[in-house]
Amino acid sequence: GDVKLDWHRSLRRGIGEIIYTPGKSDDQLVKIARSIAEHRSNAIFSRVSKEKYELLKTVLPDLEYREDARLGLCCFEPPKERGNVAVIAAGSSDKPVAEEAAGVAEFAGCHVERFYDVGVAGIHRLFNLLPKIRKADAIVVAAGMEGALPSVVAGLVSSIVIAVPTSVGYGASFGGLAALLSMLNACSGGVVVVNIDNGVGAGLAASLVATK
Amino acid sequence: GDVKLDWHRSLRRGIGEIIYTPGKSDDQLVKIARSIAEHRSNAIFSRVSKEKYELLKTVLPDLEYREDARLGLCCFEPPKERGNVAVIAAGSSDKPVAEEAAGVAEFAGCHVERFYDVGVAGIHRLFNLLPKIRKADAIVVAAGMEGALPSVVAGLVSSIVIAVPTSVGYGASFGGLAALLSMLNACSGGVVVVNIDNGVGAGLAASLVATK
Amino acid sequence: GDVKLDWHRSLRRGIGEIIYTPGKSDDQLVKIARSIAEHRSNAIFSRVSKEKYELLKTVLPDLEYREDARLGLCCFEPPKERGNVAVIAAGSSDKPVAEEAAGVAEFAGCHVERFYDVGVAGIHRLFNLLPKIRKADAIVVAAGMEGALPSVVAGLVSSIVIAVPTSVGYGASFGGLAALLSMLNACSGGVVVVNIDNGVGAGLAASLVATK
Amino acid sequence: GDVKLDWHRSLRRGIGEIIYTPGKSDDQLVKIARSIAEHRSNAIFSRVSKEKYELLKTVLPDLEYREDARLGLCCFEPPKERGNVAVIAAGSSDKPVAEEAAGVAEFAGCHVERFYDVGVAGIHRLFNLLPKIRKADAIVVAAGMEGALPSVVAGLVSSIVIAVPTSVGYGASFGGLAALLSMLNACSGGVVVVNIDNGVGAGLAASLVATK
Amino acid sequence: GDVKLDWHRSLRRGIGEIIYTPGKSDDQLVKIARSIAEHRSNAIFSRVSKEKYELLKTVLPDLEYREDARLGLCCFEPPKERGNVAVIAAGSSDKPVAEEAAGVAEFAGCHVERFYDVGVAGIHRLFNLLPKIRKADAIVVAAGMEGALPSVVAGLVSSIVIAVPTSVGYGASFGGLAALLSMLNACSGGVVVVNIDNGVGAGLAASLVATK
Amino acid sequence: GDVKLDWHRSLRRGIGEIIYTPGKSDDQLVKIARSIAEHRSNAIFSRVSKEKYELLKTVLPDLEYREDARLGLCCFEPPKERGNVAVIAAGSSDKPVAEEAAGVAEFAGCHVERFYDVGVAGIHRLFNLLPKIRKADAIVVAAGMEGALPSVVAGLVSSIVIAVPTSVGYGASFGGLAALLSMLNACSGGVVVVNIDNGVGAGLAASLVATK
Amino acid sequence: GDVKLDWHRSLRRGIGEIIYTPGKSDDQLVKIARSIAEHRSNAIFSRVSKEKYELLKTVLPDLEYREDARLGLCCFEPPKERGNVAVIAAGSSDKPVAEEAAGVAEFAGCHVERFYDVGVAGIHRLFNLLPKIRKADAIVVAAGMEGALPSVVAGLVSSIVIAVPTSVGYGASFGGLAALLSMLNACSGGVVVVNIDNGVGAGLAASLVATK
Amino acid sequence: GDVKLDWHRSLRRGIGEIIYTPGKSDDQLVKIARSIAEHRSNAIFSRVSKEKYELLKTVLPDLEYREDARLGLCCFEPPKERGNVAVIAAGSSDKPVAEEAAGVAEFAGCHVERFYDVGVAGIHRLFNLLPKIRKADAIVVAAGMEGALPSVVAGLVSSIVIAVPTSVGYGASFGGLAALLSMLNACSGGVVVVNIDNGVGAGLAASLVATK
Ligand SMILES: Nc1ncnc2c1ncn2[C@@H]1O[C@H](COP(=O)(O)O)[C@@H](O)[C@H]1O
Ligand SMILES: Nc1ncnc2c1ncn2[C@@H]1O[C@H](COP(=O)(O)O)[C@@H](O)[C@H]1O
Ligand SMILES: Nc1ncnc2c1ncn2[C@@H]1O[C@H](COP(=O)(O)O)[C@@H](O)[C@H]1O
Ligand SMILES: Nc1ncnc2c1ncn2[C@@H]1O[C@H](COP(=O)(O)O)[C@@H](O)[C@H]1O
Ligand SMILES: [Mg+2]
Ligand SMILES: [Mg+2]
Ligand SMILES: [Mg+2]
Ligand SMILES: [Mg+2]
Ligand SMILES: [Mg+2]
Ligand SMILES: [Mg+2]
Ligand SMILES: [Mg+2]
Ligand SMILES: [Mg+2]
Repeated sequence: GDVKLDWHRSLRRGIGEIIYTPGKSDDQLVKIARSIAEHRSNAIFSRVSKEKYELLKTVLPDLEYREDARLGLCCFEPPKERGNVAVIAAGSSDKPVAEEAAGVAEFAGCHVERFYDVGVAGIHRLFNLLPKIRKADAIVVAAGMEGALPSVVAGLVSSIVIAVPTSVGYGASFGGLAALLSMLNACSGGVVVVNIDNGVGAGLAASLVATK
Repeated sequence: GDVKLDWHRSLRRGIGEIIYTPGKSDDQLVKIARSIAEHRSNAIFSRVSKEKYELLKTVLPDLEYREDARLGLCCFEPPKERGNVAVIAAGSSDKPVAEEAAGVAEFAGCHVERFYDVGVAGIHRLFNLLPKIRKADAIVVAAGMEGALPSVVAGLVSSIVIAVPTSVGYGASFGGLAALLSMLNACSGGVVVVNIDNGVGAGLAASLVATK
Repeated sequence: GDVKLDWHRSLRRGIGEIIYTPGKSDDQLVKIARSIAEHRSNAIFSRVSKEKYELLKTVLPDLEYREDARLGLCCFEPPKERGNVAVIAAGSSDKPVAEEAAGVAEFAGCHVERFYDVGVAGIHRLFNLLPKIRKADAIVVAAGMEGALPSVVAGLVSSIVIAVPTSVGYGASFGGLAALLSMLNACSGGVVVVNIDNGVGAGLAASLVATK
Repeated sequence: GDVKLDWHRSLRRGIGEIIYTPGKSDDQLVKIARSIAEHRSNAIFSRVSKEKYELLKTVLPDLEYREDARLGLCCFEPPKERGNVAVIAAGSSDKPVAEEAAGVAEFAGCHVERFYDVGVAGIHRLFNLLPKIRKADAIVVAAGMEGALPSVVAGLVSSIVIAVPTSVGYGASFGGLAALLSMLNACSGGVVVVNIDNGVGAGLAASLVATK
Repeated sequence: GDVKLDWHRSLRRGIGEIIYTPGKSDDQLVKIARSIAEHRSNAIFSRVSKEKYELLKTVLPDLEYREDARLGLCCFEPPKERGNVAVIAAGSSDKPVAEEAAGVAEFAGCHVERFYDVGVAGIHRLFNLLPKIRKADAIVVAAGMEGALPSVVAGLVSSIVIAVPTSVGYGASFGGLAALLSMLNACSGGVVVVNIDNGVGAGLAASLVATK
Repeated sequence: GDVKLDWHRSLRRGIGEIIYTPGKSDDQLVKIARSIAEHRSNAIFSRVSKEKYELLKTVLPDLEYREDARLGLCCFEPPKERGNVAVIAAGSSDKPVAEEAAGVAEFAGCHVERFYDVGVAGIHRLFNLLPKIRKADAIVVAAGMEGALPSVVAGLVSSIVIAVPTSVGYGASFGGLAALLSMLNACSGGVVVVNIDNGVGAGLAASLVATK
Repeated sequence: GDVKLDWHRSLRRGIGEIIYTPGKSDDQLVKIARSIAEHRSNAIFSRVSKEKYELLKTVLPDLEYREDARLGLCCFEPPKERGNVAVIAAGSSDKPVAEEAAGVAEFAGCHVERFYDVGVAGIHRLFNLLPKIRKADAIVVAAGMEGALPSVVAGLVSSIVIAVPTSVGYGASFGGLAALLSMLNACSGGVVVVNIDNGVGAGLAASLVATK
Repeated sequence: GDVKLDWHRSLRRGIGEIIYTPGKSDDQLVKIARSIAEHRSNAIFSRVSKEKYELLKTVLPDLEYREDARLGLCCFEPPKERGNVAVIAAGSSDKPVAEEAAGVAEFAGCHVERFYDVGVAGIHRLFNLLPKIRKADAIVVAAGMEGALPSVVAGLVSSIVIAVPTSVGYGASFGGLAALLSMLNACSGGVVVVNIDNGVGAGLAASLVATK
């Protein structure tokens, strides 16, 4: 067949396979859903439209839909418990990406705290929240436009900062490139970066770090 | 001849012609220096190497050399007095660009205060300095790597912020491109940008703003 | 909540918060509008579609809509008076961006004069207007395609020129990149640059400069 | 002064300040070294040439030099003990970057195992080493050219993979851009990325993850 | 006329003209179809939509449609027999490009084996298939995202690997650029590359290599 | 008003103003059409959709529409006679751009010969046509994808070759960038280049060259 | 042999072969010089260093060296007479490229007038020269940085403008890319472009246009 | 150790390991040479400077140096015989890359014919050579600048064309990028591409294709 799921990796990480739905045909998605139903293995579908969700639900009736995170969560057995993850978003437009990260981390067993709309334009909004943010074992920071927030946050905490550039912006943001380059050049140290809009990757990385 | 200075513009702005020296032959530089000596007009030479300075001095004996700013300053009549300019540098490696801006602004008659090595990696270093920075009519902020400082500063002051990306960095800084894009996408508002390493342009713009 | 407005900055600058509407959900916009209504603070919504405007109006009945500038203006108390701003547009297609700049500057209390369709292809159109343009405390120049106008203007005036590259063009304009690079390399001096199509940023910067 | 070290951050992370030496003048480096000598705080100098090392040693006589890592290590008190870090290099030319990561992690108190020249061109070289690699709490993978190794490794382990693109290559490697993009697009999940040639950042991130 | 087919080349290669349909008007396509019908020469239409297929069929009633490959195949005389081609796809979303390559190679007379969804994230899926893959005279490998698979495959086989980057991915995949650069930098040797999504070119090249 | 036509330039060149219609509002287009009707000056509208044409015709009833060239031609007085122009197109998909160039040159008074679908893939198609092509005073060559045709043609003729890259292609053609760079690097000499898809500019340049 | 000159093309254009010297070994240059000496055909060597010139002169004793244009001119028979060419340079640093264009045009038999240092920063310098510039059959305009001059010139003349972007500038000029894009997007019409620093190509194109 | 050679791959392909020398320390090169001497396996060193060659020769006394190809060839047992390979170079500056390809193919046992300086600027030079070129089982075409030659050649032959973009050129050639994109977009079909200046990869691929 033209679809092969990778159960070994899921096992190793204890999180379950993650399926990126865009670009997959209905036929392929149904095959994948059936394979999951058979193995009764936890799985996450990402970037799931309302329509795709309805389709998948015909095969996986217990599939949970988190609309703001565009995630379809399929949970056969509860995850092992993990540590604390903070998810910070610079602007309110970065929320979908932040929710994607938060959703994956929660599905993996982490305890997640959200801190949204605390961008560098009004940096004082961040300071009151620092005591809470510092409790996290891993910190996800999503930001678009100039992408400066991860660098500022990393200078104020001691945990690793997983930076997610978002495609929020226009003109010379070049679809998230400006934020991406900014984060890769963070002078604070302790900042690592994932792909533009890759909330899934950030949430997964945070979970691996917050594993006790 | 192949060199024509623009005395009209100098007059209009009251600052003097600015000559970018790289790429000009010794012959051309001497012609320019002679023309300045004749007109007895103030002038600034930028990116001046020690050798070029010695050459120019043979024609313009009173030429002042600011080595850390790489500027040659030629002052026939004192500038009119202008307002306050703050020049902030994120890292200590951004100093040459910051000094270039400060030198031009001082030459134009501004009172300049310098605030160096206060990058976003340790943002608290900035806060103690805010009362002083807020006194400036125009604020120049030079930063390389992720170029996040102008955005943070602009969120804390009410004057315009003139951001200068520097080529300090390596890898995905792409010669200052990361800082440039970051500054163009500054979400704070009130941030305007000049070319990478263009301390001259920043100092000149600050002077125009700080004109009373 | 996932939306936090920054009243401090608004106060500092005396202009009011500026809300970029694209990418924000209806739910988020309503929350923001409510927060504005409560604080009775001046505010500007940018890139507002007709539909979004209708939505915001249900919460803010006095919201004014400037369709050609795509701005929603919410004015609880009249702005303090500021100086003169000239807004120049190279081509007639640059009008929306120019109007955005003009609208923000007017909302901030500036007196704005508009000079449209005076691009470098017929540079004589510019010369008749120079006496009027020279009266401005700050000059905004919007141009797409080759973006040459700010450099030409800056050579003819003594105020600062705030250049706005627009995405007008095709092919090797690469969505405004050609104009952006052109403006960053302006050899005239006294030119500063904002993001592609960023009329809001240009208008705000002009207002900060034209503050008496 | 134009140099300000950030002792707070060092304390928070328990690793010591990291000073990037290129672009700093001898004068600035001496000032920094003196400040370190005074505070008796651990510190790392990165990208240190033989000449710079001799200079720094005049102020910090106990400074250790790791030539292949281009690091100057200044240790006043032994680091707290941390977990296991694996450092993998795809090709033998990636060694300097890998050593930089390894050096920082060791300085931070980690136990480091090195696995060099195990690139994807001969993937079997990797398999024998897997049992050892899987013992690490954090895995650094340095690779130039196509940068494929982090993705392959991440598919075979359960710890986080910190990918460092290197500038090793020519032509369409564009100074490490090819490897950088490759790593950002890793389909394996669990891969995070730092700047091109940023061994320091990778080693620091690994240490933060391997903190018990 | 504005359409000229190149029968010489077709003859030389023994495969038939290949017509790229996007951007051609209905009128032009009908002219091309008529010319083919007249010459009774084998031909392949690529990127054929359902609608375009119906149009072409009115002129070429025996035209075969391979929907998943988006190919229209017009066979007047059976191809000469050629060797074995393996077509490997990294992810299930790369299938359309892989099918395009496979379809062209089969049309040219090759025996084609397909190996789909065997990406580097779970490299073990590849190993079981190696004995079969090694039988091929030419190997096509389609992959998006980080495009690492061709390099891994080339390290394990002795035939040439024809790498096809696909536009599958998002963010810093930049429409297939990441995969393209990755493949051009393949450190394995024996890897050659075609344009992004160019299944036709890969299938044609494979056929030329597999010619006995 | 926000629209100013440039009658001086039209006079100078004897061709008439050329109006790029995309991005202009209906209101602006009507104003422009009225201004043309008043001055009774020749004019060309480019990239005119069927709808825009109908709108313009209400003001300029004699406006001629060339659909395949997307041109609206408004001719009050016949052009002076000019020389011969050859317009060559590499592929049949390049026809709209080629027709745009041909239409402008004809409107300017040139005698135009068209040579379409003679790309480098079957270079022999070009050779038969050479005697005719060599009669032209100026040669326009439109090509997409690899954009190699202008270089080949320029090696075979003695007139200037005006190369127009087209956006025909996909993947690494990057919207015509590949063809553009190819043409700028033409090793033949005698090749000059205009913007991607800029048939208007090519036709205008050819007319200026073919002026007797 | 590994060097083949193309006497046909030289004949056709009546100018002589043009040899780009960088990247050619001494051995190859000597072979080329000998071939020229044998055919007694006019030829131009470009980008010739002093050392290369001495080498070539051993074979071609009458070779003329224009140091500021970096050209070696080898003239066996005087060129046919051609028309007038104007060569304009924006800044004094653009002189070498402008001289290269002027040298080639003169060698081809044109009468050349030079207008240097008349960039857009002081546009009035251009206006006095217009009557002279308008006499040219073809106008070459060399400019670096923002590359705005060709567009301004083209709006004021009726001949074709051949724009040469130069690599003069720094930072976001990206080695001449900013000027190149600017010129390709010239809104004036009648502007055609050659490669960055390609004075030879501009001079050759001007000669072809100025052929009577 | 930090160097691991891959004897399996060498065996599989029957060519021997290929070692890219730049970026490897003397120490690493000596280790590699010793390992080769021990295994008595054929090997190729690429991009070998005169100095590196002398070093390697101390360990491998029979190492042959091809200076124009920058190759060090180490042959313990003669290669099996393979088919015919044609190596074509567009300009004489492309010779080093072409020689690299030719050298690798000869070392692998192919019979190689060279055709140099036959670029598209004088396409007739190619036609006389076609009968010889058509005898090759695989054709390598190296070209810089616009990189058009592979596309032209592929339209005239029936074997696969392996295109090697070279970094020959300046300005908008962007270090070979123009030629690379051109080749990837070749409309002829049957063209595959390797990295810029990658003569080794082209020669290796040609050998794999010419294997009987
Ligand atoms: N939103 C996402 N972003 C990046 N990678 C993802 C995303 N969702 C799933 N993946 C990864 O993509 C791979 C699935 O590829 P495929 O075989 O095409 O389904 C898995 O390895 C996932 O870890
Ligand atoms: N460092 C600098 N950066 C940017 N522009 C400069 C610099 N120095 C001088 N200029 C400007 O460059 C112009 C001089 O160019 P040129 O006449 O070619 O030397 C003047 O208009 C100056 O304002
Ligand atoms: N090799 C390196 N790569 C990336 N960041 C570094 C490196 N070395 C030091 N740094 C960081 O750069 C900052 C020092 O900047 P500065 O104070 O300007 O010297 C510190 O925050 C370090 O964490
Ligand atoms: N999907 C495809 N991708 C790349 N090239 C193609 C494709 N389909 C056809 N071609 C080539 O494009 C050329 C046809 O161009 P045209 O003359 O416009 O039909 C032929 O030489 C084909 O080999
Ligand atoms: Mg906000
Ligand atoms: Mg610092
Ligand atoms: Mg206009
Ligand atoms: Mg190796
Ligand atoms: Mg998969
Ligand atoms: Mg065709
Ligand atoms: Mg000048
Ligand atoms: Mg040649």
